[in-house]
Amino acid sequence: MEDVNRRLVLAERPIGMVDGSTVRMENVPIPGPGQNEALVRVQYLSIDPTIRTWMDDAPGYLPPIGIGDVVRGAGIGEVVATNSDRYAVGDLVFGLLGWQDYAVAGEGDAALQTLPAGVAPTLALNLFGVNGMTAYFGLLDVGRMAEGDVVVVSGAAGATGSAVGQIAKLKGAAKVVGLAGTDEKCRWIVDQLGFDEAINYRTDNVGRRLREACPNGIDLYFDNVGGMILDTCLGQLALRGRVVLCGAISTYNDKRRPAGPGNYRNLIGLRGRMEGFIILDYVDRFPEAQAAMFGWLTEGRIHHAEHVVKGLESAPDALNLLFTGGNMGKVIVEI
Amino acid sequence: MEDVNRRLVLAERPIGMVDGSTVRMENVPIPGPGQNEALVRVQYLSIDPTIRTWMDDAPGYLPPIGIGDVVRGAGIGEVVATNSDRYAVGDLVFGLLGWQDYAVAGEGDAALQTLPAGVAPTLALNLFGVNGMTAYFGLLDVGRMAEGDVVVVSGAAGATGSAVGQIAKLKGAAKVVGLAGTDEKCRWIVDQLGFDEAINYRTDNVGRRLREACPNGIDLYFDNVGGMILDTCLGQLALRGRVVLCGAISTYNDKRRPAGPGNYRNLIGLRGRMEGFIILDYVDRFPEAQAAMFGWLTEGRIHHAEHVVKGLESAPDALNLLFTGGNMGKVIVEI
Repeated sequence: MEDVNRRLVLAERPIGMVDGSTVRMENVPIPGPGQNEALVRVQYLSIDPTIRTWMDDAPGYLPPIGIGDVVRGAGIGEVVATNSDRYAVGDLVFGLLGWQDYAVAGEGDAALQTLPAGVAPTLALNLFGVNGMTAYFGLLDVGRMAEGDVVVVSGAAGATGSAVGQIAKLKGAAKVVGLAGTDEKCRWIVDQLGFDEAINYRTDNVGRRLREACPNGIDLYFDNVGGMILDTCLGQLALRGRVVLCGAISTYNDKRRPAGPGNYRNLIGLRGRMEGFIILDYVDRFPEAQAAMFGWLTEGRIHHAEHVVKGLESAPDALNLLFTGGNMGKVIVEI
Repeated sequence: MEDVNRRLVLAERPIGMVDGSTVRMENVPIPGPGQNEALVRVQYLSIDPTIRTWMDDAPGYLPPIGIGDVVRGAGIGEVVATNSDRYAVGDLVFGLLGWQDYAVAGEGDAALQTLPAGVAPTLALNLFGVNGMTAYFGLLDVGRMAEGDVVVVSGAAGATGSAVGQIAKLKGAAKVVGLAGTDEKCRWIVDQLGFDEAINYRTDNVGRRLREACPNGIDLYFDNVGGMILDTCLGQLALRGRVVLCGAISTYNDKRRPAGPGNYRNLIGLRGRMEGFIILDYVDRFPEAQAAMFGWLTEGRIHHAEHVVKGLESAPDALNLLFTGGNMGKVIVEI
């Protein structure tokens, strides 16, 4: 055990990408666990696009990270000291630990989830964690995917997108098309993950390729990126098509207010629906999705990848990977 | 009975507003009703914004009107000759009669709806017709309005919008705010129709007035207009807010592809939903809404207005009224 707690605090709100002046490393004393609390040594940080949105001074589903506050983020850690019956030393716990070496776990609302034995932490952060749950409930509950649907997903080589495409196939989609930003990613999602087609949105004509791949239109578009790709998919929606709004990663670093999708008007004539969701609302139903995920994993029918970056100090660069497209699968920082 | 059928055919596709070269009056022989058909003398035309969208060469929920074809439009007429058991001379019928003096009514898919006795034709085109049905099912079914909702409606002095606001109040909305384009319209919807507040979108600061009127956000926005007002309402949506996409009248005459609502991103964090619909899908359920409407009318709890324009030749100008805001209530052409 080190005798200091290193933590990354938000030094200033980024304009555009996170850079060297966005966060500042601080060394502070390790917090002692109080009554009914435990001390957690953070081992893995889950790097998610939503962290970038919390850095802006804008209303959202959680308040912005305050200037001088530890950067908010999910992670997994080990309980190293405890004054709580809820936690035993050695437990692996999951929750919003923040970008720091040590976090304090409480009870009640501040409680962390204890990981079941036998689930690797990296997997817990990916298919069993926020990404897998987001893919599962976004596709099936928000999007009400039905057998025979033609499904398109953007950010398809990311942690959420790669799960979306695979779950769609497992649930009987007629066709699954993924959009990704490199040929390597495109090969991975088709050859390893079983997507029917992949479109490289940086080099292909997305509109034309989508028309060829989905001649009868898109029944369900799972949107991780926003921007032009959302607009193009809205322009090619099928009757009663659904757009699941999961994220808008192409716009999170925009310095100006991003434009909206002009093709939203298609929703009228097509009786279409565009709906957003936040996975926190589904926590009570996670066991249902985790059971399905466990079955598919056991049968070797679902695959995952992690892109692990070492060192707490690398967290800002790891976050930027999501926006430059430098990752395949889940980005994790190992402390 | 005249001995010619005057009809307005689409001469060229309008760019922007309909003008003198968009339609052409033709005199053709009155069609004879064939086997199982009836001849209908058109009395009233329902002037609806959607007619403008059919004039564009763009995919939609119905095919574009062909160049040289009679302008498509709903109307009410009287059966003047019949070779069908379905229609008796003197019956008043409703359907897509088109902009002409005489239309032929068929059976099966081409059948027209016979109006119940005692419903004035103008009312049949308004609260009992497409506008009333659109308001009812859009608000309650697509928008799932619940008691206590804060409801905003644009085009609030139009046939659909004025019904939306009144039905919302009748169904227990906590507050109903209407947007309209003149002070006279604003007074009408508040003083006569019982809206809680009206905003003149031409002279008021819409964003600020909405924030004052709906400090906790908008639960349901019924959108007839699209454009900036849609974007502003998306920016002020409440948690689990719903946007019912009924029309986009502010954009139908745009010469360039209209911009989209940049604030759509709010739907993610707010778990919001934006959904379109076409009232034709609800025809089987019209009796349910018409029964409710009949009850409210009998009790004097719902009001309506018609703006009647005389003469078939006035139909193009009557259509433009919808876009210049020259009407209060339902625009009808009396032939």
